[in-house]
Amino acid sequence: MDIVFVTGNRGKVEEARSILGERGITLTQVECEYPEVQADELEVIAACGARWAAKRLGRSVVVDDSGIFIRALNGFPGPYSAYVQRTIGNQGILKLMEGVEDRYAVVKSVIGFCEPGCEPLTFTGVLEGAVSDRERGTHGFGFDPIFEVCGRTLGEMLPHEKNLISHRARALRKFADWL
Amino acid sequence: MDIVFVTGNRGKVEEARSILGERGITLTQVECEYPEVQADELEVIAACGARWAAKRLGRSVVVDDSGIFIRALNGFPGPYSAYVQRTIGNQGILKLMEGVEDRYAVVKSVIGFCEPGCEPLTFTGVLEGAVSDRERGTHGFGFDPIFEVCGRTLGEMLPHEKNLISHRARALRKFADWL
Repeated sequence: MDIVFVTGNRGKVEEARSILGERGITLTQVECEYPEVQADELEVIAACGARWAAKRLGRSVVVDDSGIFIRALNGFPGPYSAYVQRTIGNQGILKLMEGVEDRYAVVKSVIGFCEPGCEPLTFTGVLEGAVSDRERGTHGFGFDPIFEVCGRTLGEMLPHEKNLISHRARALRKFADWL
Repeated sequence: MDIVFVTGNRGKVEEARSILGERGITLTQVECEYPEVQADELEVIAACGARWAAKRLGRSVVVDDSGIFIRALNGFPGPYSAYVQRTIGNQGILKLMEGVEDRYAVVKSVIGFCEPGCEPLTFTGVLEGAVSDRERGTHGFGFDPIFEVCGRTLGEMLPHEKNLISHRARALRKFADWL
């Protein structure tokens, strides 16, 4: 079975291919910018994006909307993680967290799936962890080098290690179970 | 002439009343949340919001989308200023700017106007200035206490002083001229 994954992010595609490949699902990447609403819930953003892309492409599609929610920063950067990554980056996040004792954060991935003419469905994966004190590791992308679980950042994990536990893997496996 | 101003922000309404009142235009505030798209340009957000609200209310409406764009932070927080204000606040911005020499920033306000069944129009006002080193002043709202022009923050200016020069006043006067 082949599904269209609408994203401009190659890292997301590689992870999804590896995880869904275990279930015999193949992915075709389509880079088509879809409008994102400003909402505090990733589920809303992923659902709207999937509906829009399914209508536009006339095919069943998946989209992925992800973010890191830092408790000491009232959930910032949350749904705007991609914009924050592009502007202040990991160094900006680390600066905001300087001297902050409460390092708790969660990373969350929401897979939005939609067939043309149908209502979209969402599948959510969450991973709890902490913001590290500096960037560590060269694997992954985005916030991976500053998000740690059990003392190791996602950036220090090999792809197969990250894919065992990651928020995205959890969301994708829920999606594959449903499918 | 009376126009509906769709916003949940009382500070914006007070400023707009004072500025448009000079031209004999009165405002009725309607608090109706409109969906905001994620876009790097305030013009796109204001236009979509005005179109949506005009359709929903069946009346001519104005909306205001504003933000502060900090050069050293690659334009952050820009279109997501309201979210950033709610989460990391002015103290977060000041922390990001600690030790940063380039303090240049602009504040920008875009008025979106739409009549039911018509295409929306936008009017943009920009004010150049700098990020201060600490919060100063108790007037205004949002980023006013950390944005300074000629050595004074907008938070240190009385309403009538701010309304002479502000980004919002410039956008509203353009709108009133057109009207």
